[in-house]
Amino acid sequence: MTDMSGRFPIPVVALSSVFDLAGRLGEADHPEIRLLRPEEIDDPASIEVALAWAPTENAFAAYPNLRLVSSIAAGVDSILACPSLPQDAVVVRIRDEEQALMMAGFAAWSVVWCHRHMGTYVENQKTRSWDREFRPVLPSQVTVGVLGFGLMGRACARAIAAMGYRVVAARRSDGAGEPGVELISGPDAPQRVAAQSQIVVNVLPLTEETRDLLDRDFFALMPEGASLVQIGRGEHLVEADFLAALDEGRIASAVMDVFRQEPLPEDHPFWGRPEILITPHKASDTTRSEILRQLAENFAALTEGMAPPGAVDRGAGY
Amino acid sequence: MTDMSGRFPIPVVALSSVFDLAGRLGEADHPEIRLLRPEEIDDPASIEVALAWAPTENAFAAYPNLRLVSSIAAGVDSILACPSLPQDAVVVRIRDEEQALMMAGFAAWSVVWCHRHMGTYVENQKTRSWDREFRPVLPSQVTVGVLGFGLMGRACARAIAAMGYRVVAARRSDGAGEPGVELISGPDAPQRVAAQSQIVVNVLPLTEETRDLLDRDFFALMPEGASLVQIGRGEHLVEADFLAALDEGRIASAVMDVFRQEPLPEDHPFWGRPEILITPHKASDTTRSEILRQLAENFAALTEGMAPPGAVDRGAGY
Ligand SMILES: NC(=O)c1ccc[n+]([C@@H]2O[C@H](COP(=O)([O-])OP(=O)(O)OC[C@H]3O[C@@H](n4cnc5c(N)ncnc54)[C@H](OP(=O)(O)O)[C@@H]3O)[C@@H](O)[C@H]2O)c1
Ligand SMILES: NC(=O)c1ccc[n+]([C@@H]2O[C@H](COP(=O)([O-])OP(=O)(O)OC[C@H]3O[C@@H](n4cnc5c(N)ncnc54)[C@H](OP(=O)(O)O)[C@@H]3O)[C@@H](O)[C@H]2O)c1
Repeated sequence: MTDMSGRFPIPVVALSSVFDLAGRLGEADHPEIRLLRPEEIDDPASIEVALAWAPTENAFAAYPNLRLVSSIAAGVDSILACPSLPQDAVVVRIRDEEQALMMAGFAAWSVVWCHRHMGTYVENQKTRSWDREFRPVLPSQVTVGVLGFGLMGRACARAIAAMGYRVVAARRSDGAGEPGVELISGPDAPQRVAAQSQIVVNVLPLTEETRDLLDRDFFALMPEGASLVQIGRGEHLVEADFLAALDEGRIASAVMDVFRQEPLPEDHPFWGRPEILITPHKASDTTRSEILRQLAENFAALTEGMAPPGAVDRGAGY
Repeated sequence: MTDMSGRFPIPVVALSSVFDLAGRLGEADHPEIRLLRPEEIDDPASIEVALAWAPTENAFAAYPNLRLVSSIAAGVDSILACPSLPQDAVVVRIRDEEQALMMAGFAAWSVVWCHRHMGTYVENQKTRSWDREFRPVLPSQVTVGVLGFGLMGRACARAIAAMGYRVVAARRSDGAGEPGVELISGPDAPQRVAAQSQIVVNVLPLTEETRDLLDRDFFALMPEGASLVQIGRGEHLVEADFLAALDEGRIASAVMDVFRQEPLPEDHPFWGRPEILITPHKASDTTRSEILRQLAENFAALTEGMAPPGAVDRGAGY
């Protein structure tokens, strides 16, 4: 398959129930990629590649020869959950090191926001109040638990460790830690991390195992007055259980970037809670041109018989 | 001098025009140190050690045999500027690695606050507004200039680099950088750093060279719309010039922790500026027990004829 196809635009169908993906990403304009809306495609059998985000149930059904399906982000759950996804298509995600560093900056910021009650200073400025009373415990005495130690979790853990916090990270598979980061592996790793963490940073992927993980039982393991930095996926969190944990004082504060429903509805109880800081899914972002660049790179690998660098393990779900 | 004196409390005079140092630090209760107020001392000639912060002009005059004068913090400028400081007394500062890490956390937080307009999210929550419009440039495209590469500056630079920012640091003496941190040395190092930094983090000590450094000329070097994280000393900043730089849009935002007058007076113009986030000198803190531990350690070194680990260079002024 070492023909010239890589040099000509690859027709890619853009499939999403929430965005006009072809319109949005088309602006980035990659020479090897031609993004098409379904209605722009005359011969669906000629389409080998799809770019998808929250596809409709039968989104893939019309394309009998799909070989590669790419997410526009790190998460692939909405693609893997789609009933029309062809069994033998390779599913790829975006793996953007710079995005991971942006995520790390957001996580580090959120840890300090919670630990050092930075919101109080923001409020105190309004009344011109110079209040030095609050003395946070030293960072070395604060354990930050990072759930997930993949592309995102690793970058988050490193940035948090660089500020002197004790960092414990949870992953599924075995693996050694690294300077400043202790690793806990195995099926109950998130729970074991939670039990010792004053601050939990969630950067897990959404899988069958992790859906609804952050529930009443999970919060009960956390130390009284702990904090949550929620930057994984909205579906990790059982929202009613979280509100109850806030009411009981088990959770004292949180920074939340992802929600079960986005945009977060105006009447959602999270908006009005002073313990929560809400950000509109802005922990990190990939650039449009990077998405197209990786799509082209993944397809080139596939046509050359190599494993696409962004390939996910469909069995594991991430 | 290897007598037993280290085992008995060392009488230490506590000298400050702003705090009751003996009262505050006495609580920490170190077995080798006995903190005394001037009025509690019968025989001033027996006093070899002073603990000081903003001493009055003639504070040291009554003690003819002072050998060691310790600050309670990283800064020694108020001690070195005191006319009654004995010529031959060794001046020591606190060097607390954990404090440097707290400082790093604060600096990292402030960089993200400025770069990613985090204050907007705090405000937007009040109106339940889910606004994703703002797209920050990637961290690798943002140069953060750290002024000072000592105990504090080094920790700050590392934490900021761990979030993917380009970091350039200024120091006086030559020295190689380290992974992720480019060093600029020499007399005009702060200016050369300023000229390329979207965000400047000031952690210089206060010396004759650095007093009033952050002035109109300095701001004119910075790129339009830059940010300032002011965690060095209040006297580094020419406040009127800074306000003018804000008005001109040269400086777009700032986090300020230190001020020429502290507490910041209620009628000070900084309080009301939405571009500035004010924190009440809380970027970092040493524990009381750590101050006394280091005081005892510095005195033990001196009596054993060794260089106290906290000794400063009186000529250089830090
Ligand atoms: N808020 C945002 O703006 C934003 C942006 C980007 C990504 N995200 C979220 O962050 C998630 C993680 O992204 P990533 O790129 O880091 O993914 P990744 O590279 O695939 O890493 C996933 C990590 O989670 C671990 N893991 C998976 N299932 C687990 C389980 N049941 N228990 C414990 N650990 C488990 C994996 O363990 P192994 O190492 O053993 O495989 C791996 O360390 C994404 O899926 C997305 O939801 C959010
Ligand atoms: N806001 C807070 O809560 C807080 C807390 C602690 C400290 N501080 C401030 O932070 C300052 C720094 O503390 P530190 O412990 O890091 O001091 P340090 O270890 O003595 O380091 C000072 C650094 O500044 C550099 N420097 C000095 N004069 C310079 C000049 N004219 N131009 C360029 N570089 C110069 C030094 O260069 P060389 O390396 O070449 O000597 C050194 O790298 C303190 O003095 C204090 O004012 C603030």
